[in-house]
Amino acid sequence: MSKTAGIIVIGNEILSGKTKDENSPYLIRELRDLGVNVRKISIIPDELRFIADEVRTFSTSYDYVFTTGGVGPTHDDLTMEGISHAFGRRMHRHPELEASIRHFYSRELIDGNLRMADIPEGARLVGGKGMWFPVVAVENVYIFPGVPEILQKKFERIKETFREAPFYLREVYLKADEGQIAATLHRVLADFPDLLLGSYPYFDNPVYSIKLTLESKDSAYLERAHAALLSQLAMIDLRPLNAGL
Amino acid sequence: MSKTAGIIVIGNEILSGKTKDENSPYLIRELRDLGVNVRKISIIPDELRFIADEVRTFSTSYDYVFTTGGVGPTHDDLTMEGISHAFGRRMHRHPELEASIRHFYSRELIDGNLRMADIPEGARLVGGKGMWFPVVAVENVYIFPGVPEILQKKFERIKETFREAPFYLREVYLKADEGQIAATLHRVLADFPDLLLGSYPYFDNPVYSIKLTLESKDSAYLERAHAALLSQLAMIDLRPLNAGL
Repeated sequence: MSKTAGIIVIGNEILSGKTKDENSPYLIRELRDLGVNVRKISIIPDELRFIADEVRTFSTSYDYVFTTGGVGPTHDDLTMEGISHAFGRRMHRHPELEASIRHFYSRELIDGNLRMADIPEGARLVGGKGMWFPVVAVENVYIFPGVPEILQKKFERIKETFREAPFYLREVYLKADEGQIAATLHRVLADFPDLLLGSYPYFDNPVYSIKLTLESKDSAYLERAHAALLSQLAMIDLRPLNAGL
Repeated sequence: MSKTAGIIVIGNEILSGKTKDENSPYLIRELRDLGVNVRKISIIPDELRFIADEVRTFSTSYDYVFTTGGVGPTHDDLTMEGISHAFGRRMHRHPELEASIRHFYSRELIDGNLRMADIPEGARLVGGKGMWFPVVAVENVYIFPGVPEILQKKFERIKETFREAPFYLREVYLKADEGQIAATLHRVLADFPDLLLGSYPYFDNPVYSIKLTLESKDSAYLERAHAALLSQLAMIDLRPLNAGL
């Protein structure tokens, strides 16, 4: 069984259409490549109750939780406080983070900046020394900023700790109507219940009208399922456009 | 108070990174333009339990719920069944939808196609006659397909029914650090508690480093809040880059 993940995107700017969420597509792609199974994504407002509820639920539902957004020094940055509520922990000023911030701002430091050193008690700093702000983690929740460039730099630093067995993928392209193949897909799934099988219609592609995706972490199982699908399709006179692959 | 909305994106292909979700950004933008306040977006797998739970929760939390994906004829199209579970309704074959499908496929119709006429009992068809498949709605849940072109065509047909008072927006651009302005923003919010105020840092823009967004459905209130913000910023010697606007 692969590890599961949930992603919580925190930000009114996404929900009001001012900013497009680039972070969840990035994390989805990276986590899939790492072999991690992303089960759910939530996009929620900068509100304490929302953040606390969502983090609490995700933390018990998935192996890893990633949050993005809401970690700056202004009134709408409520992620740390929301997470402390979720786990019933108090907030405290973390000495190591405080030192980083004092060093970074040097003589220009003002009180507002130090708010970024306030994190839930018992939080861990991951990603090692020398990082321009490490990743803060509380239990299985990894906290990232909303700015994509910084999120990506931080994720790059810790991503290998999440790597596990990869997913194997086969694709089959057909010129057909989904209704024609529904029963065939059911039969293949009856024989290969662990196969991850997707069927996607395309209405504007001149070459194919269905893409089937077959996935598994067991490559031998995947190849057997793929062969079974091809022979079932041949029985209803359908030949994949990429049959030779 | 503006009406609220939640969007539920249903599809393993999004969570596994095979397809990028274009539908929620589209719906967010459209709904904002219509004056509707989008409160939450969930992206969930093609699984009955997920769909039923999410639809049930969203339906009681928001005025409108929009689902995308999972409405075709194959094994992974479970949206209709999930929604029928959410509301404790049975599925039935809808005569008007069945007639549309029979007409569309004509002599090429096979049983698999007719599965698309199976919807929850008591569901309404909205969007009027002559539409290539109307929008199916159950209580406050509007059901859309995952294919963006079709979703958009369908949404265009019914969107005016959601229109209400618009949001008014003011933006303020600053060259500053967020820590410098945090206290100022708190003061403005103390005087204008209903103001929707966002503060967003930019680390790679040569001209500005903070964008502030001020929003309200009450344009006079917005203008007063905007003026108050500008005078507060002047007190800490900060001049917006777009002060003349």
